[in-house]
Amino acid sequence: MEITIIGLGLIGGSIALDLRRSHFATRLTGVEDNPIHAREAVKRNLVDRILNIKEALTDTDIVIIAIPVDKIISLLPYVLSNISKGTTVTDVGSTKLEIAKAVANHPNRRNYVPSHPMSGTEYSGPMAAKEGLFKQKIAIICDHKKSAPQHLALIEKMYQTLEMNIAYMSSDEQDHSTAFISHLPHAVAFALANTVLAKENRSIIFDLASGGFRSTARLAKSAPSMWGPIFQQNKFYILEAMDTYIKHFIELRESIEKNEDEMYKLMTNANKIKDIVDGKSSSMIKNENRIIKYFTK
Amino acid sequence: MEITIIGLGLIGGSIALDLRRSHFATRLTGVEDNPIHAREAVKRNLVDRILNIKEALTDTDIVIIAIPVDKIISLLPYVLSNISKGTTVTDVGSTKLEIAKAVANHPNRRNYVPSHPMSGTEYSGPMAAKEGLFKQKIAIICDHKKSAPQHLALIEKMYQTLEMNIAYMSSDEQDHSTAFISHLPHAVAFALANTVLAKENRSIIFDLASGGFRSTARLAKSAPSMWGPIFQQNKFYILEAMDTYIKHFIELRESIEKNEDEMYKLMTNANKIKDIVDGKSSSMIKNENRIIKYFTK
Repeated sequence: MEITIIGLGLIGGSIALDLRRSHFATRLTGVEDNPIHAREAVKRNLVDRILNIKEALTDTDIVIIAIPVDKIISLLPYVLSNISKGTTVTDVGSTKLEIAKAVANHPNRRNYVPSHPMSGTEYSGPMAAKEGLFKQKIAIICDHKKSAPQHLALIEKMYQTLEMNIAYMSSDEQDHSTAFISHLPHAVAFALANTVLAKENRSIIFDLASGGFRSTARLAKSAPSMWGPIFQQNKFYILEAMDTYIKHFIELRESIEKNEDEMYKLMTNANKIKDIVDGKSSSMIKNENRIIKYFTK
Repeated sequence: MEITIIGLGLIGGSIALDLRRSHFATRLTGVEDNPIHAREAVKRNLVDRILNIKEALTDTDIVIIAIPVDKIISLLPYVLSNISKGTTVTDVGSTKLEIAKAVANHPNRRNYVPSHPMSGTEYSGPMAAKEGLFKQKIAIICDHKKSAPQHLALIEKMYQTLEMNIAYMSSDEQDHSTAFISHLPHAVAFALANTVLAKENRSIIFDLASGGFRSTARLAKSAPSMWGPIFQQNKFYILEAMDTYIKHFIELRESIEKNEDEMYKLMTNANKIKDIVDGKSSSMIKNENRIIKYFTK
């Protein structure tokens, strides 16, 4: 199968590696504006060739758009207008509502399958691409009834090839949920990093940075060029998530100052996160008959 | 050497494992109030025997107190009053100011070396003990001039055996620094867990929990029985750290809502944490001639 990937960073590059390894792709074509990234991607053999966008949309089976979400919005209508009749298009952006809106009335809307493979690291660029990044993770497919069944089936098959499970939900639900489970932790980490960086005696503090701090602040290394547009596009739900978090944080702060019993109650409640962070959630969810296709479990 | 460890949880148990493996200890005696933990500790061969506190203080070379910080405060004066003349005492609590105050005028104060080996996991109990937990990590020794040089030297040698580097600072400085680098990340994680747990559609959210959420919320699994007393004993500096964090978090929130340029500035600033979380801080600190003994690097 001919695959075109627009954007050869961590996500686009990692998809390329696994689609090649699995022989799902017979030829991989890349589109990459950044000339250094383009060179690195060819050097790492992520793609067979780099073409300009116009050429790369010709005679290809799937177009995967893997660029920051603000750029997806600008580019997606152009892509849908310039593909061959049978080509399937997907994007991998962390927000979906605004992106889906941008092509809601496009004549080729049914060629497009909005998706969000939920995996990543705090690194970016083609050198950060790695095999198996998506294994056992969840790919969200949004508003699936708005895609033609053939295009939907092909994108499902692609994520199945990446060994992912698939969750179906509306763009709105995906943006709301990811605001809490993915975007909020990034905001939390950015603010923690800024707090510690602002300390006067920061050299002492840094020397003491142990595993706990490293884990909690890890996401603060994430690229602003990727996360800024996500925060802007999902502003409504991210502000809701941040305001809810501030309420809980202040509640804990007040309890530490004035109400020890309440403090223990809040900490004990937080411990319930164990099952989730230990990855025990899936069986629980399965019992609730949620519409998730478990291919890999 | 005869070593007595009071409290055979994650920290006490892990110290036991490494002191035995290195032959620093010839006999390990444990004191453990929790009968299940006591049985597990013996079963895992963490210690050679369990004694009651009174017997365990007789004819031993080092007493290591590894229990929650509220219990250290109650027990430390008793321990100092009941040791043999030459015995060295240390504790491994995450707070130091209140603990040091509790024995400031004790006649055996110079037998005591307040310390804080900075390592751990979110798990607790003797089954969580593991070899090499402290390797390449920092042990803080506080107010070292208040300890007799022989007792100080022996505790330094013990941490050197655990392959730790040693930082020297006042109890006040240690409590202030750890409030930001260790206690604050725990508060941040507890509040993040509570935020997500409070969502109505939480089963959907949990299913989407990816590596980023897991990393940021990991510390929310920590035991309230250990962290509650830390938050209470270091209340003054933890509230300072939490208030500073709230300021930075709200600043980020406001910038997302109203000031995109400022948002990018804040995210770019947070990226500077890279060097610290990637563990590149030590060389920087060394250049500043800080009083850290690097045994292992």
